[in-house]
Amino acid sequence: MAKIKKILVANRGEISLRIMRTAREMGIATVAVYSEADRLSPHVLFADEAVCLGPPPSAKSYLLGDKIIAVCVELGVDAIHPGYGFLSENADFARKVQEAGLIFIGPSPEAIEVMGSKLAAKQAVAKYDIPLVPGTEEAISDIPVAKTRAAEIGYPILIKASAGGGGKGMRVVENEAEFEEQMQRAVSEAQSSFGDSAVFIEKYISSPRHIEIQVLGDQQGNILYLFERECSIQRRHQKVIEEAPSAVVSPEMRKAMGEAAVGVAKACDYYGAGTVEFIVDGELNFFFLEMNTRLQVEHPVTEMIIGKDLVREQILIAEGKPLSFTQDDLKINGHSLEVRVYAEDPKNNFLPDIGKLETYKRPQGAGIRVDDGFEEGMDIPIYYDPMIAKLITHAEDRQSAIEKMVRAIEDYKIVGIQTTLDFCKFAITHDAFVSGDFDTKFVENYFSPSVLEQEFSESELELLSALAVEFFTKNKPSGLLKSESISNKESAWRNRLQ
Amino acid sequence: MAKIKKILVANRGEISLRIMRTAREMGIATVAVYSEADRLSPHVLFADEAVCLGPPPSAKSYLLGDKIIAVCVELGVDAIHPGYGFLSENADFARKVQEAGLIFIGPSPEAIEVMGSKLAAKQAVAKYDIPLVPGTEEAISDIPVAKTRAAEIGYPILIKASAGGGGKGMRVVENEAEFEEQMQRAVSEAQSSFGDSAVFIEKYISSPRHIEIQVLGDQQGNILYLFERECSIQRRHQKVIEEAPSAVVSPEMRKAMGEAAVGVAKACDYYGAGTVEFIVDGELNFFFLEMNTRLQVEHPVTEMIIGKDLVREQILIAEGKPLSFTQDDLKINGHSLEVRVYAEDPKNNFLPDIGKLETYKRPQGAGIRVDDGFEEGMDIPIYYDPMIAKLITHAEDRQSAIEKMVRAIEDYKIVGIQTTLDFCKFAITHDAFVSGDFDTKFVENYFSPSVLEQEFSESELELLSALAVEFFTKNKPSGLLKSESISNKESAWRNRLQ
Repeated sequence: MAKIKKILVANRGEISLRIMRTAREMGIATVAVYSEADRLSPHVLFADEAVCLGPPPSAKSYLLGDKIIAVCVELGVDAIHPGYGFLSENADFARKVQEAGLIFIGPSPEAIEVMGSKLAAKQAVAKYDIPLVPGTEEAISDIPVAKTRAAEIGYPILIKASAGGGGKGMRVVENEAEFEEQMQRAVSEAQSSFGDSAVFIEKYISSPRHIEIQVLGDQQGNILYLFERECSIQRRHQKVIEEAPSAVVSPEMRKAMGEAAVGVAKACDYYGAGTVEFIVDGELNFFFLEMNTRLQVEHPVTEMIIGKDLVREQILIAEGKPLSFTQDDLKINGHSLEVRVYAEDPKNNFLPDIGKLETYKRPQGAGIRVDDGFEEGMDIPIYYDPMIAKLITHAEDRQSAIEKMVRAIEDYKIVGIQTTLDFCKFAITHDAFVSGDFDTKFVENYFSPSVLEQEFSESELELLSALAVEFFTKNKPSGLLKSESISNKESAWRNRLQ
Repeated sequence: MAKIKKILVANRGEISLRIMRTAREMGIATVAVYSEADRLSPHVLFADEAVCLGPPPSAKSYLLGDKIIAVCVELGVDAIHPGYGFLSENADFARKVQEAGLIFIGPSPEAIEVMGSKLAAKQAVAKYDIPLVPGTEEAISDIPVAKTRAAEIGYPILIKASAGGGGKGMRVVENEAEFEEQMQRAVSEAQSSFGDSAVFIEKYISSPRHIEIQVLGDQQGNILYLFERECSIQRRHQKVIEEAPSAVVSPEMRKAMGEAAVGVAKACDYYGAGTVEFIVDGELNFFFLEMNTRLQVEHPVTEMIIGKDLVREQILIAEGKPLSFTQDDLKINGHSLEVRVYAEDPKNNFLPDIGKLETYKRPQGAGIRVDDGFEEGMDIPIYYDPMIAKLITHAEDRQSAIEKMVRAIEDYKIVGIQTTLDFCKFAITHDAFVSGDFDTKFVENYFSPSVLEQEFSESELELLSALAVEFFTKNKPSGLLKSESISNKESAWRNRLQ
């Protein structure tokens, strides 16, 4: 069994730092890589050794798989952790890592490959009785056949180009009357966009929830589920708030989803940490969407509720060790929330904001975890995902985790850049979120920039008037206690008035 | 049932801040008090309102109970949380708080009073079958009677002045031959020091462990034990490293100690959070020492392993709510360590060091909690306990909690002041600590200032020589990777050499 002594993290920012912290705690030496834009990043300063890969953008640095492997050979690295994004789901890279005699901290290249293709994944899981969104099993271009299938599936249905991806070439059909025209357009669009007219037809779930299951498997074939993460709050189709457990998943549903996820993982002989994503409809029926064959951005909420370090588990699995616990050993302790702090302007369509972190003070205290890769005074580079930090809270129940998150957001001081913090506070205190009754359309349904406009409460207005009077008359308040007392709110107003 | 809407925290620094964070999360308004020396403290800035009590030392500010009560009346405060130290175990203050119509967040004045007196505490617990250190039940001054009792108890024995305290007037007698002479001295010393010649005789436990049990009781009479904290690592007879659970307490011993602690609490009709301290001998027999009728400095390690917020529980109990969980609901999750970061110089007998926190960077990441009351640039005032912070780690087992603590200590950057951090790293990585085989004499047995002298490892010396050669010849290393690679250790040396 291999003992890993030196790990190179083929990533940047918060996830690189987060992985290296665990490695160091395990007594493993760390090597960081960086682009010229990240020269002064905390992940570079933290590492035992650091190697510059080249200039931004990523194609010239973080995506240079061969160069990264050469660095490993040169520096005597045993294993590569790819983090998420970049090379993490690149089967060719994983294969080359292994061919160079190094350990790839992740699943087999074959598992990455199978789950990287929607069709291959569907075929692989077919014999495991995994619920799939009802639809055509093979690509189709014949319109009358398609219409019959659509009627069987039931409207609304979704037509997707077989060769498409990321929402491109998708078309919702509400009823049979519209079908032929829409199908015709979809087929010809697919032909012109992708050179392939084949499309899939599937049931359209109009207001889905996005719930995923964390799985963990060892190289001995044991696969466990580490419960769910609710990731329905999204903006621009990307997750921004996650929690574990979900407010709507019952113990029975959790077990059913967990076992389905283990089935998906078994279908590709999965080992390491992976995530099986499900789409959940209004009646809480769940359907397999895809498997992410890597550590997920939102993995911390799972760590908080199960009390385990997923990166540590990944490393132990990569060393060939069997899992040291069973499904029955896993219990949910409390509730955890994560909000992603992006350098984005929620009042301007969540467009990325750039600039310098002029003030940057993290919230402190029990049950608060900040995973980040920046320090005060640093610039947020324009070349990469604009995530500044992940702010995670853990408390004994959902309501307390929300209250702690509100306090943490208020204590997070970021000046110099627009962030998603205020939006996240709005979202987690919104009735729909608090009640658990929300879906991926939360932003569309409830959010508008005006909800973030600061309004004065009545007591603030009263105080403001009183202070205005005082300011203009220059009379000091009298009385022993008054003169010795400082109300922070008062002094804040005083500062505004002066 | 009272709903508390505004809390005044009659304390300073980290514990004031820690309490107010929970209050804010619960939607309760906060009032801080401060001395002139603490005007710019984070606890003052955090609070909704803040009142200056007067100049240091504490007798002129933090100990002014009547003034604090007047502030509460003036500002419409419902409840006072005393924290630890200062007025927290002052029964008269607790009584006056209640008489002013305010809620004292703590036990009844009567419980404070009983447990504040060694003799009253012993008498109160007598009917609860609590193991006590074998000894005389009443004070004694007759020498022949004392000698007979000493023989029954068995040597070594300890003679303590009835009116003494804090180690004053204590005398260890190793064998019968020495007894009469030592007893005579003890009696006359007691007479001259305290005007009372009475002494107690008890079994002397030469190398004890200090293990305490957290209890929590509601006003309905339910009392639970929240497991133990091991607090044996002390310097100057004061705790510096704590952990939960203890490395040596078995489930059976935990239950026995827990039930004994509940007995002690029942003996004084205890409600709120309290700690029952035990002395534990080499054979793991445990004996009741005293009860602390307040929140303990080291309470966070208990919070980490049971997943509950003790201040929140204190507030709910003070509101009159019954406990929302039972003994069976409480489970130990993982392991937690706390090291106290004091502004002290371990190389100089742990004498307090003063100065400014020129650099102050907290460690970050999963399973790390820092409870502190300072920010970079602040002075550590000379008037108070020199504790800068409590650094707490939580991981799935003891070994991982230690490894995480080592990493956290290394990442804690404090410049401008001597601290106990290096000492704590030495202690938690010492074989005696790692194996669990240690007692309150750890510092005396294993520590000397020389263990903190930095020594160079062989590889560091090698690197140093290589860099020295490079420095003097001014040749740059060659090769593609070399020239692009930065080893942090190398660059640290480069900086030292240049």
